[in-house]
Amino acid sequence: MLVTTVEIRVKSEYIEEFIHATLENYEDSIREPGNLRFDVLQSVDDPARFTLYEAYESEEAAGAHKQTEHYARWRDTVAPWMEKPRVGTPHRVIAPVERKQWK
Amino acid sequence: MLVTTVEIRVKSEYIEEFIHATLENYEDSIREPGNLRFDVLQSVDDPARFTLYEAYESEEAAGAHKQTEHYARWRDTVAPWMEKPRVGTPHRVIAPVERKQWK
Repeated sequence: MLVTTVEIRVKSEYIEEFIHATLENYEDSIREPGNLRFDVLQSVDDPARFTLYEAYESEEAAGAHKQTEHYARWRDTVAPWMEKPRVGTPHRVIAPVERKQWK
Repeated sequence: MLVTTVEIRVKSEYIEEFIHATLENYEDSIREPGNLRFDVLQSVDDPARFTLYEAYESEEAAGAHKQTEHYARWRDTVAPWMEKPRVGTPHRVIAPVERKQWK
């Protein structure tokens, strides 16, 4: 399993548009065969900060996400709304290790 | 629902001890009544960087976690192993909104 956290800071005037575009990406991403989770979170203290929590069953499945049409559409749509470049960090899973705890 | 991400950088000589202590905290935390997830992740690029992904059904449940004996034990055990103070960020959930997607 591989979990990528993506830290995003959007320009405050685009918060609603960003949420809308990201929910579309969410709906398509959770239907990918190798996807386990795709959580969309908004910071309580700073509503312009978002975290995506993207869990895939393998590195290959995570890579395949980046090849999808919905990912490309999201990436291009939200790019001009970013306050600064987003930061993605790949992680290995220490716990839980059981696949059924992920989907 | 409330998700707190906790970013942790441990001293490299304490990585194994940190994982051991954190897995103990994980086992106790997922048994808390209001806990939804408690994922323990390790950065692929820097094995001394960890992320905890702590999902609770309410702010009260997240607060109750901080009052538990296992949390206090983990906090005090790992404190001297930290390279720098850990950073916790509380988030509201944009997606998925269904409770059953969380536990």
